[in-house]
Amino acid sequence: MVRFQSKKLAEEVVVRDPVHGDIHITDQVVLDVLKSKEFQRMRRIKQLGPVSYVFPGATHTRFEHNLGVYELTRKICDIFEQKYPSKTPGDGLWDTDNRLLVECAGLLHDIGHGPYSHTFEHLFGTNHEKIGQRIITDPSTEINRALKQVAPNFPEAVASVIAKTYPNMQVVKMISSQADADRMDYLQRDAYFTGVNYGMFDLERMLRVIRPYQGGICFTNNGMHAVEDYIVSRYQMYQQVYFHRVGRSFEVILHHLLERAKYVYSQGQLQVTPSLAAFLGDSWTLDDYLKLDDGVMETNFSMWRDASDPILADLASRYLDRRPLASVKIDDQTKNLLPKLRGLIKEAGFDPNYYTATNSMYDEPYDAYKPSGKNANSQIELMQDDGSLIELSQLSPLVKALNGTFQGDERFFFPKTMISQSDEPQIFDPLYQDFQKYVKNGELRYLRRPKRKEE
Amino acid sequence: MVRFQSKKLAEEVVVRDPVHGDIHITDQVVLDVLKSKEFQRMRRIKQLGPVSYVFPGATHTRFEHNLGVYELTRKICDIFEQKYPSKTPGDGLWDTDNRLLVECAGLLHDIGHGPYSHTFEHLFGTNHEKIGQRIITDPSTEINRALKQVAPNFPEAVASVIAKTYPNMQVVKMISSQADADRMDYLQRDAYFTGVNYGMFDLERMLRVIRPYQGGICFTNNGMHAVEDYIVSRYQMYQQVYFHRVGRSFEVILHHLLERAKYVYSQGQLQVTPSLAAFLGDSWTLDDYLKLDDGVMETNFSMWRDASDPILADLASRYLDRRPLASVKIDDQTKNLLPKLRGLIKEAGFDPNYYTATNSMYDEPYDAYKPSGKNANSQIELMQDDGSLIELSQLSPLVKALNGTFQGDERFFFPKTMISQSDEPQIFDPLYQDFQKYVKNGELRYLRRPKRKEE
Amino acid sequence: MVRFQSKKLAEEVVVRDPVHGDIHITDQVVLDVLKSKEFQRMRRIKQLGPVSYVFPGATHTRFEHNLGVYELTRKICDIFEQKYPSKTPGDGLWDTDNRLLVECAGLLHDIGHGPYSHTFEHLFGTNHEKIGQRIITDPSTEINRALKQVAPNFPEAVASVIAKTYPNMQVVKMISSQADADRMDYLQRDAYFTGVNYGMFDLERMLRVIRPYQGGICFTNNGMHAVEDYIVSRYQMYQQVYFHRVGRSFEVILHHLLERAKYVYSQGQLQVTPSLAAFLGDSWTLDDYLKLDDGVMETNFSMWRDASDPILADLASRYLDRRPLASVKIDDQTKNLLPKLRGLIKEAGFDPNYYTATNSMYDEPYDAYKPSGKNANSQIELMQDDGSLIELSQLSPLVKALNGTFQGDERFFFPKTMISQSDEPQIFDPLYQDFQKYVKNGELRYLRRPKRKEE
Amino acid sequence: MVRFQSKKLAEEVVVRDPVHGDIHITDQVVLDVLKSKEFQRMRRIKQLGPVSYVFPGATHTRFEHNLGVYELTRKICDIFEQKYPSKTPGDGLWDTDNRLLVECAGLLHDIGHGPYSHTFEHLFGTNHEKIGQRIITDPSTEINRALKQVAPNFPEAVASVIAKTYPNMQVVKMISSQADADRMDYLQRDAYFTGVNYGMFDLERMLRVIRPYQGGICFTNNGMHAVEDYIVSRYQMYQQVYFHRVGRSFEVILHHLLERAKYVYSQGQLQVTPSLAAFLGDSWTLDDYLKLDDGVMETNFSMWRDASDPILADLASRYLDRRPLASVKIDDQTKNLLPKLRGLIKEAGFDPNYYTATNSMYDEPYDAYKPSGKNANSQIELMQDDGSLIELSQLSPLVKALNGTFQGDERFFFPKTMISQSDEPQIFDPLYQDFQKYVKNGELRYLRRPKRKEE
Repeated sequence: MVRFQSKKLAEEVVVRDPVHGDIHITDQVVLDVLKSKEFQRMRRIKQLGPVSYVFPGATHTRFEHNLGVYELTRKICDIFEQKYPSKTPGDGLWDTDNRLLVECAGLLHDIGHGPYSHTFEHLFGTNHEKIGQRIITDPSTEINRALKQVAPNFPEAVASVIAKTYPNMQVVKMISSQADADRMDYLQRDAYFTGVNYGMFDLERMLRVIRPYQGGICFTNNGMHAVEDYIVSRYQMYQQVYFHRVGRSFEVILHHLLERAKYVYSQGQLQVTPSLAAFLGDSWTLDDYLKLDDGVMETNFSMWRDASDPILADLASRYLDRRPLASVKIDDQTKNLLPKLRGLIKEAGFDPNYYTATNSMYDEPYDAYKPSGKNANSQIELMQDDGSLIELSQLSPLVKALNGTFQGDERFFFPKTMISQSDEPQIFDPLYQDFQKYVKNGELRYLRRPKRKEE
Repeated sequence: MVRFQSKKLAEEVVVRDPVHGDIHITDQVVLDVLKSKEFQRMRRIKQLGPVSYVFPGATHTRFEHNLGVYELTRKICDIFEQKYPSKTPGDGLWDTDNRLLVECAGLLHDIGHGPYSHTFEHLFGTNHEKIGQRIITDPSTEINRALKQVAPNFPEAVASVIAKTYPNMQVVKMISSQADADRMDYLQRDAYFTGVNYGMFDLERMLRVIRPYQGGICFTNNGMHAVEDYIVSRYQMYQQVYFHRVGRSFEVILHHLLERAKYVYSQGQLQVTPSLAAFLGDSWTLDDYLKLDDGVMETNFSMWRDASDPILADLASRYLDRRPLASVKIDDQTKNLLPKLRGLIKEAGFDPNYYTATNSMYDEPYDAYKPSGKNANSQIELMQDDGSLIELSQLSPLVKALNGTFQGDERFFFPKTMISQSDEPQIFDPLYQDFQKYVKNGELRYLRRPKRKEE
Repeated sequence: MVRFQSKKLAEEVVVRDPVHGDIHITDQVVLDVLKSKEFQRMRRIKQLGPVSYVFPGATHTRFEHNLGVYELTRKICDIFEQKYPSKTPGDGLWDTDNRLLVECAGLLHDIGHGPYSHTFEHLFGTNHEKIGQRIITDPSTEINRALKQVAPNFPEAVASVIAKTYPNMQVVKMISSQADADRMDYLQRDAYFTGVNYGMFDLERMLRVIRPYQGGICFTNNGMHAVEDYIVSRYQMYQQVYFHRVGRSFEVILHHLLERAKYVYSQGQLQVTPSLAAFLGDSWTLDDYLKLDDGVMETNFSMWRDASDPILADLASRYLDRRPLASVKIDDQTKNLLPKLRGLIKEAGFDPNYYTATNSMYDEPYDAYKPSGKNANSQIELMQDDGSLIELSQLSPLVKALNGTFQGDERFFFPKTMISQSDEPQIFDPLYQDFQKYVKNGELRYLRRPKRKEE
Repeated sequence: MVRFQSKKLAEEVVVRDPVHGDIHITDQVVLDVLKSKEFQRMRRIKQLGPVSYVFPGATHTRFEHNLGVYELTRKICDIFEQKYPSKTPGDGLWDTDNRLLVECAGLLHDIGHGPYSHTFEHLFGTNHEKIGQRIITDPSTEINRALKQVAPNFPEAVASVIAKTYPNMQVVKMISSQADADRMDYLQRDAYFTGVNYGMFDLERMLRVIRPYQGGICFTNNGMHAVEDYIVSRYQMYQQVYFHRVGRSFEVILHHLLERAKYVYSQGQLQVTPSLAAFLGDSWTLDDYLKLDDGVMETNFSMWRDASDPILADLASRYLDRRPLASVKIDDQTKNLLPKLRGLIKEAGFDPNYYTATNSMYDEPYDAYKPSGKNANSQIELMQDDGSLIELSQLSPLVKALNGTFQGDERFFFPKTMISQSDEPQIFDPLYQDFQKYVKNGELRYLRRPKRKEE
């Protein structure tokens, strides 16, 4: 294993951060990456996309989150160096030579994200992980040039940590596991900026009980309460923030809006900035990708408000002016009603392809803590006095209990006007009355055909 | 005085806010204003503009601030109604009939702001106060239509409160005075999002001691410590955030960037979105103004990066990639050196008109608490047991002391490369050496002409 | 129902409290009760007794807790008056006439507590509830005289609320139910003073969703997350604070110490202050009870350090100098080992009657939230949109999960020296080795008799 | 300089603390000192004595404060070791060999305090500093025995640090200077427990800028705002907590109560516990001193309530039942009125020797930050880029301003009944009316003799 080392700064640079207090930068390479235009671009991409439509404070960007993950890896390295320094190779303790590598990987783990990543990827076939790898390893980027100052193969090493192919699992899991620097930062940060206090956990205490072991990162057994607290916070954030029905409704609108734009563009009628045009026309470069950000997207939407295509113009306005779709919970039984409902919606004048959707929280880019299943190898473990590891839910009745409680939240989205409570004419219209009889207390209900009398 | 009343919502709407906990909306008109597209546009305008380049957390927008001011006026109304309800007209206590009016004025007090307001106004002659009045009173806006549901003259009444021409001084001063809902909200909010803890003051306790009197709003005398705390917080925010030299450097860059864009546009060579083109061409409408936001501006800057005009392209990159100008403190004596320094900067290849500037903190849009002078009538007063009022600094040695401490911070801005500490060639270049001998410890120093030998 | 009203104070009295910010007193009777010597005595009785031996910050007293419960009832009354005022008798909303009554009941709900209440009651047959009733209704007390200023039957009314015999269940349940002012205050307060952050819940938000109904107090259905948070906090406080093994060990020592003192006193050899002598001699008066406090108890312990009875002197030192007993978890199977272990302890020179004990967390004075069982009628309910009530665990998978997780923690306490890890002689002593082989990882383990070879 | 080293604990011991999160103990000697009975006794002595009568949360004890100072010295040592380790003797950086010494000195700096130290010392001629030295160096104490495990001369070394005679000024000033671990802990702690938020400062940031220099401890120049914040907090704590008139009134009562007890004891009539008797009889031992604590004192007061001496009984009740004296501000001019007022108070039936007093805040055991004067050598200094030191108030206009604002608060204390506002008979009594005409707005006022008509 090569030892990567950076020129130290003459004087530490400190960036104020409301979540961690201060971000400390002592390496030239970290400062250079930070100053690169690819990294600065992150300032223009919100961490939670349209969630700020539900929690107005959530305007924080991927820039701060990346810095926060860097700061947490830096702190964990400090702790590991002080408390668990490796003495002989392979002793399962922390090898200090990995510090710079893991710090840079933390800093860059999300560098491939663009605006509205998940929606964008679905529609344009981009992949933020692959793009991230390119931004790090492509000689055209300022980030690549900065990293190469450390060593010619440093960019590839950083990329391999993010790709989880780096051989040292402690390094990989510090930024990719069920309780890693990435999640710890975003849960705290999202809680701070949304104002959802229930999402705050005791980060300081959690760092106090984190430790390395042969196969990765675990926690000392006296830290169970701190880890429980983290899991409960995470549960609350998923329930209250990440799966919020209104936020999801704007993901739906966004998806349909971009889909429609693609169609209208293909008809040759769309006013669009050059960077986005490249994607609508399916021939984009890395440079095009790096020119996208939330503001560019919204500037396009703003121009599309005035488009001649009525669906495009309407969806653009709905997004910019924050006019969400309504939604109801559905299940396997009530799903059968959707064709009927889509028919009514169409009758009311809305194209169901652009004005309805189903969306399940299982589609979301977040996964709950599950000790078995595909992420089994990133489960949380507590080290016992004798060095053995026990998976968290074996020890904590609270966590065990929570694991069973995640349930699907599948929803059907449609125009609010279908169930408007206002005193507008349609509430007496049989079409709307028909629709509304299927909706009760936020759920679809299955109406059985009334039995005929003679039966 | 007319009594304005709104239809109440069937159910209270609550918006989560990390600063105040929750924003409570019970009136139809408040909800309608909130949903208007002119108000939603505030989501796309950062409260502190380029300050987020210094404090990355400061991405909060005018949307949340406006909601926050509304919430504070609502709380103050609650307190006044409970503790100081007027019994007979003219008794100097709180007349509940003003509640809806002052809440709407709080909500809309900043509605006229566009992106980078202060810089923009200098260059394009816009005036956010006048535009705000128009947005409220012009029948073309959704806000105007919402307000008129209350009464035909309600928009004008709201506008008059913001213009400070409304006769009841309690109403006016609740949103425009030295310790009003506007300042209380932005100090707390800016402290929260920047992470500058010193800027936090005890808002809850401050609300506990606020009270109306015949001529406006004052504080009860047992509240002196709470008000002191507020003044100290304010002092800290000015020193550390609002007057930060790097934030100011981006105001300078922004100003020169737009100035250059205007020039290049006049030469007919600029790629620009239609909304901004209207301003560069000096023939804009309210609708054009309402289409501007931070994202639109930055999208233009992003296109200008590739402009053929080198100054425009460079300034656009400096802004987007966060490359600040350097600066030094100047005073009346060292100002005399500026022509000389501008000459050296020109020699180094920079057009001094676009790459240098002086900027004094007195120019800033914030004013410190000063009990005398032009804002004398908005001074903070404490009501004594016998009902008399004493101005704060008469009672608080701490505030009295602070009042004398605000000092000018006039700065000269120039390209960083002039004082680069890096090992690039120019540090041996006599031109740079000449420049650098005038700079010491962040200040300009006046070099006396060496005495001639024969003397 | 009589309407009780108090003389209002000319000026509100405010008491600073770190948990609630300020305690507000506006009624003469509340101030008079507060100033009574029986109430001031609460300042000398710690809220959590020997828990401060585990969490040194937990020195807070019953005085602050009582004030805190008063403040919470006051706040809840404010909320109910504003949001849910009764319009017609029996409409299930809040009848303002009960305010003073419930505030005084909140203030006095714990007035009968003495030092180390639970231990003391076991040994001396006192009953803090009955004594509380006497303090309120006995004409000899300053509290009774203060209350009678309101109405001759006011003391009895206050007492009946605390005794849960008052007819209005909203009044009773505001201070005695699963989520009442009592519990809300002590959970927050104990978390604040112990420093166990996990015990903090969002009190402000909880108050926002509390509401009256015909049969008592419930929560609005949008408040589920706030109530979940409260239940999780409570779980954490029980696990980490109230059931802490070291705190329980001092309860054990205290019990044995007082038991021994009673015995020695009966032998006529004990130096003791007059107030405590009355209890040891089994002929105490209310006045004797009111003279007891933590300081008096500890002063007696301090004198007993020098007693000629070695067990008494040793137990007194153990308590004052904070030398806990060790403990291990036991279960139905390992319980069978206790006679054997007590035998070894006796051999080591300790009287098992005074140096060992079993103690189950079920004995503790706290009960976890259980929607069925003896406290079923105080379960937490959420009011649905249609006014129906659903018990919390029916709606919250998290709470449902937690309900099953409370498990007994039965422990066997014994002198630490039996398992000393230090390098003192006894670790080679067969007696200690014998004892220690039954203990592993903090639990007793059942050793099976080795099978004989020939079998 | 000898290097002192302790046996390390096999496993770190952690004590939860609400102010610092956790206290970390890794040395056997620190744990042994903590477990000593002399140190455990600190649990029974409140940090702020009767201040809890004004701020009920302030029940915290000297035990936690001592632990807190230890924890802060530990943290400062960590920081110094990481950032400023000495490389060559005399280089003005931090010599790690001093760690254990300064940690123990921090832990024990207040060990000599007894209950109500300042009052007690005045009356009984005890001196907490000298007693502290004895507790550390006297072979009879458990603390001495614990310290000697490190080295025979370790107790003396620890004592010399506390006595400020230890040669290394960095070590001395870490616990005794204007911004030392002692003050930093008590300001934070007192603010936390009183609930006076204005007293909170940003401890974390302050620790980030602390550094050693040749002559002691200073701060880096980028830390000025953190230090300003500390000074403002301190100012607020003095104004609001330490100099509170009601707290001072109980110091007055305590002084007179003990003075009277001494007199009554000399008459041979007093019921008193043996430990206190030794002091009243002027022949006490260290062991007697160590038996005193708040509870013992209050137990004596409680017995004295029933004393036959009416003054003693009354003062004891006033103290225990929290019945303060009233007070008014006096100045050099109004002091002349005191003989007249004392006369009136005597006429009203109170012995002025026991029921009146003057007390100036200058007498208090706290001193404000003053860069000149007797504490000049402990002033706060900021290290400039070139290593030079500048005293804080030279750089901070805010601190400079505050330094001039401390003003004397001299008060005259007397029975509240003299100015009773209640409707009791005396308000019509000429005696009381005579008294009250001298009091206005909490101050004494000087009445000029009315001019005679013929003049």
